[in-house]
Amino acid sequence: MNGFRMTQIGNSTNHISIMNNCHTSFGTINSQERRIDEFIEIIRRVCKCNELKLHEPFFSGNEVKYLESCISSNFVSSVGKFVNKFEKMLADLTGSKNVIATVNGTSALHLSLLCIGIKPEDEVLLPSLTFVGSANAIRYCNAIPHFCDISENDLNIDTSKVRDYLKLIVEKHHSYSINKFTKHRISAIMPVHLYGQPVNMDEMLSIASEYNLTIVEDAAESLGSYFKNKHTGTFGKIGCISFNGNKIITTGGGGAILTNDSKLARMARHLSTTAKISHPWELSHDEIGYNYRMPNINAALGCAQLEMLSELRKNKRLLHSKYKKEFDDVPWVKLIAEDKNANCNYWLNTIVLQVNKTSFTKKLIQGCHEKQIFIRPSWKPLHLLPMFKSCPSSDMSTLTKLQDRIINLPSSAYL
Amino acid sequence: MNGFRMTQIGNSTNHISIMNNCHTSFGTINSQERRIDEFIEIIRRVCKCNELKLHEPFFSGNEVKYLESCISSNFVSSVGKFVNKFEKMLADLTGSKNVIATVNGTSALHLSLLCIGIKPEDEVLLPSLTFVGSANAIRYCNAIPHFCDISENDLNIDTSKVRDYLKLIVEKHHSYSINKFTKHRISAIMPVHLYGQPVNMDEMLSIASEYNLTIVEDAAESLGSYFKNKHTGTFGKIGCISFNGNKIITTGGGGAILTNDSKLARMARHLSTTAKISHPWELSHDEIGYNYRMPNINAALGCAQLEMLSELRKNKRLLHSKYKKEFDDVPWVKLIAEDKNANCNYWLNTIVLQVNKTSFTKKLIQGCHEKQIFIRPSWKPLHLLPMFKSCPSSDMSTLTKLQDRIINLPSSAYL
Repeated sequence: MNGFRMTQIGNSTNHISIMNNCHTSFGTINSQERRIDEFIEIIRRVCKCNELKLHEPFFSGNEVKYLESCISSNFVSSVGKFVNKFEKMLADLTGSKNVIATVNGTSALHLSLLCIGIKPEDEVLLPSLTFVGSANAIRYCNAIPHFCDISENDLNIDTSKVRDYLKLIVEKHHSYSINKFTKHRISAIMPVHLYGQPVNMDEMLSIASEYNLTIVEDAAESLGSYFKNKHTGTFGKIGCISFNGNKIITTGGGGAILTNDSKLARMARHLSTTAKISHPWELSHDEIGYNYRMPNINAALGCAQLEMLSELRKNKRLLHSKYKKEFDDVPWVKLIAEDKNANCNYWLNTIVLQVNKTSFTKKLIQGCHEKQIFIRPSWKPLHLLPMFKSCPSSDMSTLTKLQDRIINLPSSAYL
Repeated sequence: MNGFRMTQIGNSTNHISIMNNCHTSFGTINSQERRIDEFIEIIRRVCKCNELKLHEPFFSGNEVKYLESCISSNFVSSVGKFVNKFEKMLADLTGSKNVIATVNGTSALHLSLLCIGIKPEDEVLLPSLTFVGSANAIRYCNAIPHFCDISENDLNIDTSKVRDYLKLIVEKHHSYSINKFTKHRISAIMPVHLYGQPVNMDEMLSIASEYNLTIVEDAAESLGSYFKNKHTGTFGKIGCISFNGNKIITTGGGGAILTNDSKLARMARHLSTTAKISHPWELSHDEIGYNYRMPNINAALGCAQLEMLSELRKNKRLLHSKYKKEFDDVPWVKLIAEDKNANCNYWLNTIVLQVNKTSFTKKLIQGCHEKQIFIRPSWKPLHLLPMFKSCPSSDMSTLTKLQDRIINLPSSAYL
């Protein structure tokens, strides 16, 4: 924190000395309140805005123009030029050979799991720290989420722990892996690029290959994030993106499936359009399908938003660098930053509080909300939710340690 | 057909005598071709338009204005004033106490079935002639579609046949019905108001009461259709509407759940928003939920469209009366018309060819398509589709007789 900023703070000129004492004095109510004030001041300095939502969309391009064009074309539903254009733009951006636009990210995951052949009672590995949709999609297939611990560095699935864990629990067969304890097949692994941070996909590919697991990448939050210059969501057999209202770009509600496998792409497209057999007029369907195709009106919004992606991404990386500059000097706050092989969209800036007091996290969030700064704790770990409690899970020591200390900061691209 | 119209026809001044002979001369190729020409002329006289899609949306109200307002509000996703307004407007229109807007009609059916407590292996009765989504929604619950025959009058589920059928197959218990043959519980019945024609809900309610079946009304196609002055979709425990691009009004993709039962409504709303527990900042979920909430941008379109509904409905009823006037004189065409207790939106005007030649139906459709008149045969009966072949079904004599003779006519509201 530089001298100029210090002079702006007013009440907290003493904060460096306070911070130096933080580990010893953290327990007292006064010291906690000072830290909350300090935190709010940092957020205000970075964001320069009174009301700070966690993440708001940013519309400053062709959104209205394309929506008007959509209305005047009369094509607003699941057929239309914007759906095709949106898919083409996404393919160009991500380098994926095939893109299928869907109603949301969860439906994209659901279809992806069906397309790779996940069967009822198969187990699918995934981190316990992710949006509930990742695990729900597995349950929609009547398959079983199998939860894994996270890494302290990037909060993503801990690949090194996964490797050790699989060594313990897997009975390897010629072309597949069985969970020794449950006797179910472990068919797939779903790395989630959490809050936009790319998973180390070298490690992930190596694990998947060793245990014959199909990779379904949950890139819901990582549009515009790269690992070794390759777009997230394009490493596995199939990957999924979300365009929900809180994402880096939005289509209102929306998602997309990415895959280089043209057979899988055809299957996903077929299943997303109620498995209707193509014919000029006959109306027949050949399997249980879904009404999962993105409507043209949502794709119109998506096209305008995608045109802005590189600017939004630049803004978001700039915001991250501002947070970094501030929090580098705050020993009780660790800001999650990209690894050397990663290039992150910084969808949500994320901190881990370097304190071991759940009560402080709550006070900090409450204090911020009272000042209209809508920071957010991480999701409750999925393995603790009532509907997943009986699902298999690995040792969760890291997530258990961190679960009440992870906080997402206001990260809108316009900040 | 009146004299004035006759003079307009040109090539078909002889058509009355031809029609009088139709039952004897139908087999010859020449007579078939004359009928196809006659049919095309009738459609052209009624619709006065060269390219005739089956059903196109009609935007002439506040669509663009509301979309602009949605973009400028920054709320395009699953929270926003248009979603609330759309639900309120639908509640006012239908008289349903509660309305929950969803991403499409299929998702509305899926949630409705879950909310009334359909369990895996339960059987749900429904007509075999309906959009595949009706049966898919049942399979999403791991329940079993049980298909019933249709009535020749309105093409809806044949209530009198259903009653006879249940007498044969049901083993009645104190508060539920068991299928004697499959030993599964028959839990619910899903009447579908096909093409907008209201099912006789007096009969339906009586059957449901006699056999302890919960009614899930598939009113996907019948927004603006009434039985005895009560809106379709509001007779059963729960009902569903669709706003897909081809419906009387559209939200791009969209649906809604109607129910007077506030507990069911709360459950549906909860499940449609990923079963997230309401809290200012905590992110936790208490059951397997779905990402099924209608985005605000789609609801914005819906609000503008709903404002137009009464006009669109008037146009569509006028179009039906024009078709009626023409086809009343054509003995080989029966136009499906509303019963005395029904008031129909005439979403899709529907005819049943009074001929017993599948080859003629195909020729008629092909001939019309060549002239840019995109008439459509009915769906392939669901009990014949590969994924439903093994599901239980009643005698299908009526549907078998009619399945290749049902045709939907161009029915856009602007015609």
